[in-house]
Amino acid sequence: MKNDEVMNIAKKRGFLWSSFEIYSGVAGFFDYGPLGAILKNNIMNKWREYYVIREGFYEIESPTIMPEEALKASGHVDHFTDPMTECKDCMEVFRVDHVIKEATGRDVEGLENEELSKLLSDEKICCPECGGYLTHVWSYNLMFQTVIGAKGKKTGYLRPETAQGIFIPFKRLLRFYRGKLPFGVVQMGKAYRNEISPRQGIIRLREFTQAEAEIFVDPQDKSHPKFCEVADNILHLYSSDRQSNGKHMVKLSAKDALESNTISSEMLTYQLCLARRFLKDLGIPEEVIRFRQHLSSEMAHYAIDCWDVEILTDKYGWIEIIGIADRADYDIKSHSHYSKEDLRVFIEYSEPKTVKKLVAKPQMSKFGPLFKADAPKILKTIKDTDASMISQALKEKGEYEIEVEGSIYQLTDDLIEFQEEEETVRGDKIYPHVIEPSYGIDRIFYAVLLHCFHKEDDRNLLSLPADISPVEVNVLPLVNKEDQVKIALEIRDQLRNDNIIAEYDSSGTIGRRYARSDEIGVPFAVTIDHDTLDDDKVTIRNRDNSKQIRIPISNLYQVIKDLMTLKTSFEDLESI
Amino acid sequence: MKNDEVMNIAKKRGFLWSSFEIYSGVAGFFDYGPLGAILKNNIMNKWREYYVIREGFYEIESPTIMPEEALKASGHVDHFTDPMTECKDCMEVFRVDHVIKEATGRDVEGLENEELSKLLSDEKICCPECGGYLTHVWSYNLMFQTVIGAKGKKTGYLRPETAQGIFIPFKRLLRFYRGKLPFGVVQMGKAYRNEISPRQGIIRLREFTQAEAEIFVDPQDKSHPKFCEVADNILHLYSSDRQSNGKHMVKLSAKDALESNTISSEMLTYQLCLARRFLKDLGIPEEVIRFRQHLSSEMAHYAIDCWDVEILTDKYGWIEIIGIADRADYDIKSHSHYSKEDLRVFIEYSEPKTVKKLVAKPQMSKFGPLFKADAPKILKTIKDTDASMISQALKEKGEYEIEVEGSIYQLTDDLIEFQEEEETVRGDKIYPHVIEPSYGIDRIFYAVLLHCFHKEDDRNLLSLPADISPVEVNVLPLVNKEDQVKIALEIRDQLRNDNIIAEYDSSGTIGRRYARSDEIGVPFAVTIDHDTLDDDKVTIRNRDNSKQIRIPISNLYQVIKDLMTLKTSFEDLESI
Repeated sequence: MKNDEVMNIAKKRGFLWSSFEIYSGVAGFFDYGPLGAILKNNIMNKWREYYVIREGFYEIESPTIMPEEALKASGHVDHFTDPMTECKDCMEVFRVDHVIKEATGRDVEGLENEELSKLLSDEKICCPECGGYLTHVWSYNLMFQTVIGAKGKKTGYLRPETAQGIFIPFKRLLRFYRGKLPFGVVQMGKAYRNEISPRQGIIRLREFTQAEAEIFVDPQDKSHPKFCEVADNILHLYSSDRQSNGKHMVKLSAKDALESNTISSEMLTYQLCLARRFLKDLGIPEEVIRFRQHLSSEMAHYAIDCWDVEILTDKYGWIEIIGIADRADYDIKSHSHYSKEDLRVFIEYSEPKTVKKLVAKPQMSKFGPLFKADAPKILKTIKDTDASMISQALKEKGEYEIEVEGSIYQLTDDLIEFQEEEETVRGDKIYPHVIEPSYGIDRIFYAVLLHCFHKEDDRNLLSLPADISPVEVNVLPLVNKEDQVKIALEIRDQLRNDNIIAEYDSSGTIGRRYARSDEIGVPFAVTIDHDTLDDDKVTIRNRDNSKQIRIPISNLYQVIKDLMTLKTSFEDLESI
Repeated sequence: MKNDEVMNIAKKRGFLWSSFEIYSGVAGFFDYGPLGAILKNNIMNKWREYYVIREGFYEIESPTIMPEEALKASGHVDHFTDPMTECKDCMEVFRVDHVIKEATGRDVEGLENEELSKLLSDEKICCPECGGYLTHVWSYNLMFQTVIGAKGKKTGYLRPETAQGIFIPFKRLLRFYRGKLPFGVVQMGKAYRNEISPRQGIIRLREFTQAEAEIFVDPQDKSHPKFCEVADNILHLYSSDRQSNGKHMVKLSAKDALESNTISSEMLTYQLCLARRFLKDLGIPEEVIRFRQHLSSEMAHYAIDCWDVEILTDKYGWIEIIGIADRADYDIKSHSHYSKEDLRVFIEYSEPKTVKKLVAKPQMSKFGPLFKADAPKILKTIKDTDASMISQALKEKGEYEIEVEGSIYQLTDDLIEFQEEEETVRGDKIYPHVIEPSYGIDRIFYAVLLHCFHKEDDRNLLSLPADISPVEVNVLPLVNKEDQVKIALEIRDQLRNDNIIAEYDSSGTIGRRYARSDEIGVPFAVTIDHDTLDDDKVTIRNRDNSKQIRIPISNLYQVIKDLMTLKTSFEDLESI
């Protein structure tokens, strides 16, 4: 299986290691080794190029520890759970949906705990480890809990997603963007999920890295100014309709997907296209990428539309690596509600509107004598209440009960007159909608390794795009002689001083060294040979086709830079 | 106070915000806002240039959650504590050393809890909040604790430092570096410290970012191949001797500091020079940087030498922003001991040595009959025991008690003969020493903001080095007219496509826009005016001296790139 071969190489060559191995390991945690960490950083920096620099979405960095209140508001304290069961005999714990899936093949996403418990007993499903009795199902919260401060009274959690760190300072972000929609903000960083029993390598981690963009838009305007640039992109779409009807996915242009209402908005469609381009730029071939729409049973109740970007793998089938959702106004509204801060955005009309408005005019001569000291606060409450509501009640029942600071006062129709007044309204205060592309960096890392790896005759080739390769240049003396070694080390150090990640290798035959270099994806090898001593030239070898050309050392830096940034191709160089 | 002014601007302009403000905030947590996050990333990327690319130390990324065993080995479970006391009246908790310092001015670092308790009562120190009675002092562990997995039995902690993540996979790292010392490995990322009551902005955070390098060296060889490059660097040194004797710091060249034994090794001295160059590159002036050696009372018992890099601030005095230590073999030895993994490194002698060795030759004819079934395991234990020790005991006392799997057996001198044999030894297995530069990124960020900020006549100037500025170019239409706006937006988008962080601003007078731009440190402003429409030229304005030159739009990208990478200076451009 390709997965196993790639993961073996990843372990052997220093991309990925199980964490805490000398302490018997802990499931769900991985170390990115020396080559893995650079590759991961390079993927993240490319993401920054896309979203921060080119889309102009500023990045922020908020804490990974969050206080309970914030996660109560987001819904995670109550709903970020997995259904769990325990074996009464061996005391092992399990995710119920996984156990049922294994035992019956049934997908039970969305079922309540009661229903799951019933299913366990109806289907006589036993402990998969020891065959023992499985207990009643309960909801297990997946957040890592801790305590903030020394008094032991403030509960904190490790964040389950980076997105919340953007919603919480929304008011400050809105001010930073001068109060105008749309704007986007991104965050990259660790998120946590205390999985019950993670067993799928870096596909299911307890600590993982996300890159999320939250794009705040006017609910009335989900257009995208750059949509024309992507309109002709072909997307492999697997809509919820086609899934429900047992059909295959289709290829549609972005434009057609939008016009046929397959995707709900221009903004969302643009985001799908951006994700596709990003993955292609990482060297993932188009044929293993598809966009799968959430079925209504999968989607959160508040969401308008949601697409998973999935990658085909030999071991796990199609796996989600990115989620792109239109979350409507859920997030900002919810934080507004819990925090009691007004997080609405003022949207100015293209021109002011004149509206007619009923205004209540309390008869002051009667109010004072009747309500005495209470009069001012009653008047204030009347002013804050919708006048048409009072008017209607008075018309229908002749009286209206108004609650002021817990006390009830009776208003009769002689106390208030009503007038229609004209008012100029410049705009509306609304909760913005949120379009959220959410990238799982570890899974993307996995997809890159898996799909850039090829076996070619006798060599292992990791054909990473040059600009994300962990080592950019490998400098090799043809033979391990002092004069060649000296030049090789000088060249390596000079390249490093020019900010190129350069390595040096003098151990073994040149063939073995090229093979090692290809296996970790070094795009270019620079070889120093006996002639170099005379002509000051070196050979550059291209990883992908093993072709070689000879150039002067003095041009080396510029040539490498041009090759790395795709300003020139190896073929161009050959033809010179 | 400059601190307050800078922090106000940092808040207003989107560099730093208190976290979770809408939920009343939580002490010790900060958000890096849109401009802060880029600046922080730029600082971190520059650190990578220094340590990863140029020094060739590979970066790794290990989890922030660690199992208890690993932190037991590192000493953090037992010793990562602060002395704490509680007020019996108001129930507030305090760090005892801070309370005593405030009350008496005394520095009590290193005192035991008993001594601190005695001091509280002897000096009649009361609760600083309510004057109440302070309880007995206990050790409060500063790690955030959590539980890994669903069974509730596996204790985990948020890592107190990134260094441990490097020590744990040491064996794999050593293999990656093909078993040869010296080599360096770095990690950048979050670390945590559950402070009792943090009150100093981003100087004392509960969640902070570290960049640590662990350089593993042969204890016999702490030289550095590039020392000659830094030998003449002048360091501001405040040695422990000078501190103890009440003297001021001195300026010494790296070479003199080493030769006078002020700093303990060439490797350590080189690291001090590297830190100095890094800080200068961030725009921090030399006169506010000093190196303070740890007093023996501050230093861990195992450490050989330790220097803090300190920065002068108006609010907090000298604060530590980097620590550079020679930690001897403590870390690897300790993990080796706790994990029972042999983490020693084989150091090959320059040539093999022939050594004479005493070998025990048990008399097999007597062993069998005497010890019967126990004989084999006794023989094995004898083989594993230093023969000269047995020989000496037999010589002195005529017998030797040997413990085998918990049982004691008596050996007498007739049972064993001794022979001297020659053995060829190719090398030694040793625990490597660790040189550790440990950078506090948040404090460095603070130091950069503080020391790059200047008030000049009527403007606020953040003179950040161009290559770490959060916004690289501000594109401004001189007046807010459609034709100028259009060109400005096109230029901004083109610069973004070329990976330059470009902003656009059309709001307010050009003077106000320059002022806003200067305050956040944008090094270059590009202004489009009426003439641009005819001559396709724009004006570039230099932040630091407000000088302007006019260049063709077609050259803009290259000019900006050259200015950013210091390939050209503004003065060079002016003279063209």
